[in-house]
This record gives sequence, C-alpha cells and structure tokens, in this order.
Amino acid sequence: MDKLLNDLMAIVGTEGMLLGEDVSQRSVDWFTGAPCRAKAIVRPRSTEQLSQVLALCYQADQPVVTHGGMTGIVHGGEAAPDELVISLERMNRIEEVDPVGSTIQVQAGVTLQHVQEAAEEIDMQFPLDLGARGSCTIGGNIATNAGGIRVIRYGMMRQQVLGLEAVLSDGTVVSSLNKMLKNNAGYDLKQLFIGSEGTLGIVTRAVLRLQPRMPSEQTALVAVPSFDALTQLLGLVSHELGLSAFEALWNNHYKLMTTESGKHMPLLADDSPFYAIIETLGLDETRDAEYFSQILQKALEAGLITDAVLANSSSQRQGIWAIREDIEVLVKELKPMFSYDVSLPIPHMEAYVETLEQDLEAQWPETGKMVVFGHLGDGNLHIMITVRDDSPESRRQVEQLVYSPLKEYGGSVSAEHGIGLEKRDYLNISRSSEEIALMKRMKIALDPKGLLNPGKVVALD
Amino acid sequence: MDKLLNDLMAIVGTEGMLLGEDVSQRSVDWFTGAPCRAKAIVRPRSTEQLSQVLALCYQADQPVVTHGGMTGIVHGGEAAPDELVISLERMNRIEEVDPVGSTIQVQAGVTLQHVQEAAEEIDMQFPLDLGARGSCTIGGNIATNAGGIRVIRYGMMRQQVLGLEAVLSDGTVVSSLNKMLKNNAGYDLKQLFIGSEGTLGIVTRAVLRLQPRMPSEQTALVAVPSFDALTQLLGLVSHELGLSAFEALWNNHYKLMTTESGKHMPLLADDSPFYAIIETLGLDETRDAEYFSQILQKALEAGLITDAVLANSSSQRQGIWAIREDIEVLVKELKPMFSYDVSLPIPHMEAYVETLEQDLEAQWPETGKMVVFGHLGDGNLHIMITVRDDSPESRRQVEQLVYSPLKEYGGSVSAEHGIGLEKRDYLNISRSSEEIALMKRMKIALDPKGLLNPGKVVALD
Repeated sequence: MDKLLNDLMAIVGTEGMLLGEDVSQRSVDWFTGAPCRAKAIVRPRSTEQLSQVLALCYQADQPVVTHGGMTGIVHGGEAAPDELVISLERMNRIEEVDPVGSTIQVQAGVTLQHVQEAAEEIDMQFPLDLGARGSCTIGGNIATNAGGIRVIRYGMMRQQVLGLEAVLSDGTVVSSLNKMLKNNAGYDLKQLFIGSEGTLGIVTRAVLRLQPRMPSEQTALVAVPSFDALTQLLGLVSHELGLSAFEALWNNHYKLMTTESGKHMPLLADDSPFYAIIETLGLDETRDAEYFSQILQKALEAGLITDAVLANSSSQRQGIWAIREDIEVLVKELKPMFSYDVSLPIPHMEAYVETLEQDLEAQWPETGKMVVFGHLGDGNLHIMITVRDDSPESRRQVEQLVYSPLKEYGGSVSAEHGIGLEKRDYLNISRSSEEIALMKRMKIALDPKGLLNPGKVVALD
Repeated sequence: MDKLLNDLMAIVGTEGMLLGEDVSQRSVDWFTGAPCRAKAIVRPRSTEQLSQVLALCYQADQPVVTHGGMTGIVHGGEAAPDELVISLERMNRIEEVDPVGSTIQVQAGVTLQHVQEAAEEIDMQFPLDLGARGSCTIGGNIATNAGGIRVIRYGMMRQQVLGLEAVLSDGTVVSSLNKMLKNNAGYDLKQLFIGSEGTLGIVTRAVLRLQPRMPSEQTALVAVPSFDALTQLLGLVSHELGLSAFEALWNNHYKLMTTESGKHMPLLADDSPFYAIIETLGLDETRDAEYFSQILQKALEAGLITDAVLANSSSQRQGIWAIREDIEVLVKELKPMFSYDVSLPIPHMEAYVETLEQDLEAQWPETGKMVVFGHLGDGNLHIMITVRDDSPESRRQVEQLVYSPLKEYGGSVSAEHGIGLEKRDYLNISRSSEEIALMKRMKIALDPKGLLNPGKVVALD
C-alpha cells in the first residue's frame, strides 16, 4: 500500500478504508453493474476527517471521486484506477429536527427516505421525492440538484436547501449551515455546490426546509386522447387543484409496463395514446376527494380524458405509482437500455417525440424501441431507448437523434440527471461557449488542481 | 473630457452619457438625498453597447458602479468621483410574454411594476412584490435577491428567475436565457449573479417565471395580544389558508403610523402590543372570503386575536397596506433614521426586540426611538431607529446594539436588503472567515481587476 493510503488510513481507521475486492465488488452503474475501479474507497466519519483526507490528497495531487447512494445514471461516480473514491456512507446522521423553525439538519450520507421519515415523525414533510428514495443520499440529491415527482409544487432540491457545509479541494471547511429563510448577507455560497456534481467541493452537511404535512392525498390514473388534451388537462388541474404531481405516460411506456411485460396491472385499457398520473395534496380528505372527482368529471365532460381510476386506498395509490416508478422493468425489457432526460418547451414536445420515433424506426426498423414518460408540468421528458446493441457507435447515433433537435427548441440535454461524463460532449447543445468558459473559470477558482471528480461536467483542457 | 469618456460616448451616443449637473442632481440615497459623485453616468441601450463599454473600462482599469431604480438602502449605488456609473435605465423593454410557457423575458432596467402589469394583462401574475415596485428595477431585484411581502408563498427573487444574461467585467456577454423549469446542464451560472449586488457581473436581461393569477384576495388587519399569540396565529393561518403575506407590526410601529403621526387611519385601537396584516390568495372569492372569516373567528375564540378588520374593497385593502408600506412617514418622523433588516429564528425574536429596546432606552433615554415590523413568517424584521443624531459614532453604537446579538442566534445582518457598503463591516457576524475568503475567491475569479462595484459586499485587500 502506498504512503498516501497509509496516511489516510491513519485518519479514517481500518474501518474507514476499503481495498481490493471490497472496491471492485461495488458497482458504479446500476444499469450495467460495472465495477468500481478506484484504488481505494475512503469512508470518513466526520467533516473533520474528510477535511484532513482532502488536505493530504491535495498535497499529493491525488484526484478523488465522491460517492453518495450511487443511483445516478450519467457516470458521475465512475473512477479510474489511479483515483480514490470518497464515500459519505458513514456520515449518515440526522443531527437535528426543529419543528418550530421547520428545518432538519443532516449529514450528507443520510438517505432521502430517512429524511422523509424523520419529517413525518413530527407531522411535517420533506417534499423532494423520487423513485430512488431508499438508496439516494441527501448529499447526492444536493450535488445533482435532484428533481423528481413533486417539483411542480415544491421545486427542485435547490429550493429545499437553507444551508450547507462543504469541504473544498484543499481541505478547507466552508460551513454555511444557515437556518434562515432569508439571508442576503453576502454571496449565497451554497448555490456553488448545489448541482455541480461534486466538482467544486464535497457536501458534508445540510440544513433542509420542511413543509407542513398534507394529510389528504388524491391520486388518479387517467387516459388522455391526445397531446393537446394532455396540455389542456394540465392547465385545468394546475389552476383548480393543489397539484403536487402531473406525470405523463406515452402509450409505449404504459403498454410496456402493463400488458407487454405483464409486470403491472393494466388499471385502464392499453389503447389510449397518453396517460397521466395526477396527484394533489391537501388538508381535508373529504372535501379534497369530492373536489378532485368533480374536476375529473369536468375533464371527462370536456373530452380531456376518456377514462380514469381513482385510488381509494394506499395500496391502490402504490399500484398507480408503480407503473411510473418501476424502472427495473424498463432496464430488463429494453436491455441494453440508453436513458435520456431532456427538457423542452411543452408546445414542441409532441412533434419532438414523433420525429424521434420515426428516426429510430428508420435507422433501426427491427430492433429500435423507445418509451417516453415524464414530468409534463416541468417540461421534462424521460426517454428510454434500446436498439438491442450498446456499441459506442450505436450509442452515439442514438444520442445524436435525441439531443440534436434540442438546440433549436432551447431545450436541455439534462433536465434533472446532471451531466457527469455521459453528457459532457453534448453540453454545448444547451450551453454557449461563453457559459462553458465561465464554468471552467469557476472550476479553476474553486479546484485549481482539478482534483474533485475530474473530467465530470466540464473538462479542463 | 478625458479620452475614455470620449470613446464611451462614441458607443452610447450623447443621449447615453450624463455629465456635470446631470450627474450630481441624481441621488444615490433616497433616505438622505445624497448626490451622485461619479464622473459620468453611462446609459447603454443594449447588451452589445454595455459589452463594448465594459471592454473599454477593463482596458482602462476604470471602476464602475451599476444603477437600477436606486431604491436600495445599503449604499450599494454610492460612487466615488473617479468611478463611472452605469445605469440600465434605457434598457427597459419587455421583450416577450409567453402565456403557454408562463414566462416573461425583459431587459434589466424595466420596473417591477411594469412586469407585474404585463403579467396581469395575460391573466397571470408576477408574484414578487415590495413597496418600491414603481421605481425598483428587475435588474436591481435580481442583483439584490429582493424579498418583499409575498416571500412566504412564492419565495424571493432567486426563485422567480429562470434565465439571465450578464456582462462580465471584461465585456464578455454570458447569455443564459433559459426558459426551462428544469435545467441541470452544467453549473447554474445565474446563481452567481443573483444577490451579488453587481460585484460579479452586470445583469442585462432575464427570463422570469409567471404564476397563475389568484383572483380572490382576502386581507385583514388584526390586533394580537402577545408575541406568543402572534406565532400561534401564524401557525394557524399557515396551515389553514393559502397564505401569501403575514406582516407583523409591533405596537411602536402601528402607533407611529396612525395616531402619533396622524398620517393613517387607526383602523383598530392603538393599544394592542402587536398587529398583523394577513393576506391570502385564492381562486374563489365567495368561498375564500367565507373561509377566511371562519378562520379569523376561530383565532378570536382561541384568544389569538382581540380584534380584526377585514377589507371589503380594494380601497380598504390599500388602507391596510398603506400602514405597512408608507416608509416615507417613518423617514420623516424618525429623522435622521437608521434602518435595519435582520433575520433570526422566531423563538428568539421577542427577547431580541425587548433587549434592543431596553439598550436603546438606557443609552439614549431622551432621544432614542425605534419601531419594528416585518415578515414574521420569514423570520425577517425591519427595525427603524433614531437617536436624533446621525454622527458616525452614534451610528456605530446603534449598529452594535442591533447586530451583536445576532451571532449568538445564528441570525443574519441582512435578510433582504443586501450588504452594500453599509453592512460590510458586519458581514463577519453572519459569516465565517472561511465563507468570506470564498466570497473573495469568487470575486477575484470573476472580476480579477476589481472593477465592478468596488468595495461593496466584500473588500479585496
């Protein structure tokens, strides 16, 4: 073992350092199961330990890659054999829950679900929510500015963070554990670390904002006859309801998840061009349920939906959401799968998806298959494609089909998943050369040796 | 006229350059009317002109101070005789209003009120709102991360900005006019410019998010018997109503604005220790009004309020809000006035204000007078103090009284007004030395010559 690893072990202890098979048995990509290739995984117990670890790495010019819950899908956690992984998995404490100030202070390695549960224990809620809730960590949610299913009501992770603590590449601890809703005392430094994917600093702790719990939850799956009806439906429910989620499913997605794979019950017939999952949160179960079904009735009469199923129990609710959230079915059915996460203005969406479908059919008439779903209200689509071949050339060709049209629409190659390694070469579709130059300038200012998650997001020349 | 001014005039034209009395007749401080001392005011018409102006200033090492609507109160617009002022006043166009995407794209010099009106024309709303709406500009709102009266519902200016364009100190235009709700394609560069008070770049254009208009507006002024009742009342209405504003007025504020100054009608007797203005926004006037008065009735029965007046017309509503928003009465009655804008956790507020009042009384028994009001739900208090003397020593002494206790409470010396020059020496009460060092690092990275709003927010050594 080299001297640096020895010195690091002196800081974190033997429990805090994984080597050999303990490293390679871990995967850096849950789609493919690709193994971690780093020379070691360092697992600090505290901000102080991490600070000492990074100070040593800085002296030794040792690049590091930070690991959270490893649920990302843009290769942000990939590590080369000469890189060290820093995992925050042993920093998973909930430090303080404050019902009066409506805040929770946690270490970065805690899972999203633990935070949600801690909020529920004091009759509040932590509103960020996504399918990976049981594995993904708050540090990862912050580093990637996670989105999920309730952005339409509560915003992305950036909106949930009141304060944070991060360690810079040289080991400097910048602690901004602000609990105030309003604080204009100088630059809002936390914004630097939110969404920068571990390239500007490593997030160690955070103060998050809690929201009043909404005891009444209404959920429906509806069949929608056209894209135009889908957007009108969104308009109707946005104005009339306490909307917390509006998830659109294209027919290809709904059919694969239900009748084609046989994995989920087809709660509605599978021949509708679109489906939507509508969820509202409120305070009064009886009143909200009545109002919810009135609005759906109105939508039915206006021809915006052709059929609907309302959840009457939490197991029915879970049944509806499982159709949307069970990504494992997609991974299996569309193997090898390419996953995309784009945003574009709603008026362009229908044509964009149709063109993409035609292009795919033209280039891969036998093997091409895609499914589309997403957070319609946020302008965010998830597109899963297979051509039954994951050679680099095929991947490139499919990427071209998916990303090229976005430039014209002012869309984004990454709505919520981030850039990582996977989308770095496409960053210029959504960002100008001046923007990318400014990103590099920030990277150099905060991480002058380029040691934090090297090559991710922006490559320094 | 020196060569630089000549060259600048060639870019912006004679209309675009103010000199001599046209400069000194302008005030940089609306409390005191202090004149602008800059050697010239440059008024570009476009981003391109501003880019050329800044490129020349960069070559000539010419420092610049940016002016928006000049409603700030932390001396952020103060300019020395060797500095140039850049005013965005001729860049005041609304470029696009998009009802489908719910966005508005504007130049930085447009007033907040014009944006609000443009949103109303398409039956939507731009929710940021503050007393200076008729004068303050969107560029200033962004540069200072403005707050105001509806933060509790819609967040601060940062939450309203989807995209922006800024010019760096060397003239580089960084255009990030994103319209997507979700865009994780690389670092979120706009965050650098929001709230950095013109020290990292000059904001030229922005894409703002619009919200559905809420046609039903309920407003009440209530008398509250204790601070404890005030916080309980906030809890009650937060949970039960579509709360959009909760403004607390201490007795000293209410009394001065009504019976003492004779400027506003005392809608309720002036002997209650606290008052609150409660506003809700909703969709159904009849239903909301009924529900609103039910909740107030509940508060009355629970002893959380002792009296209430509900606005029955828009003029009554304005009458209630005028008590809160008519800052000119305060400026006149408390002349010379020191103005503070702090945030701290609600549980510490009552003791903080009481101690401050006692300290003031002890040090200035004859002349000391203070009034307190603010956005209680945001933890934000505005404190206006006079000791009938604005010597630097008196100012320092009062500042010590106001700011020193905040460190212990984890409070902020600036909730929404920013730092400017006025609070720079107190930044270390709310921020650690590591945080301030990181702010300086960002300043050096983005403005290496220190030409943008020099000395504001953080001083480079």
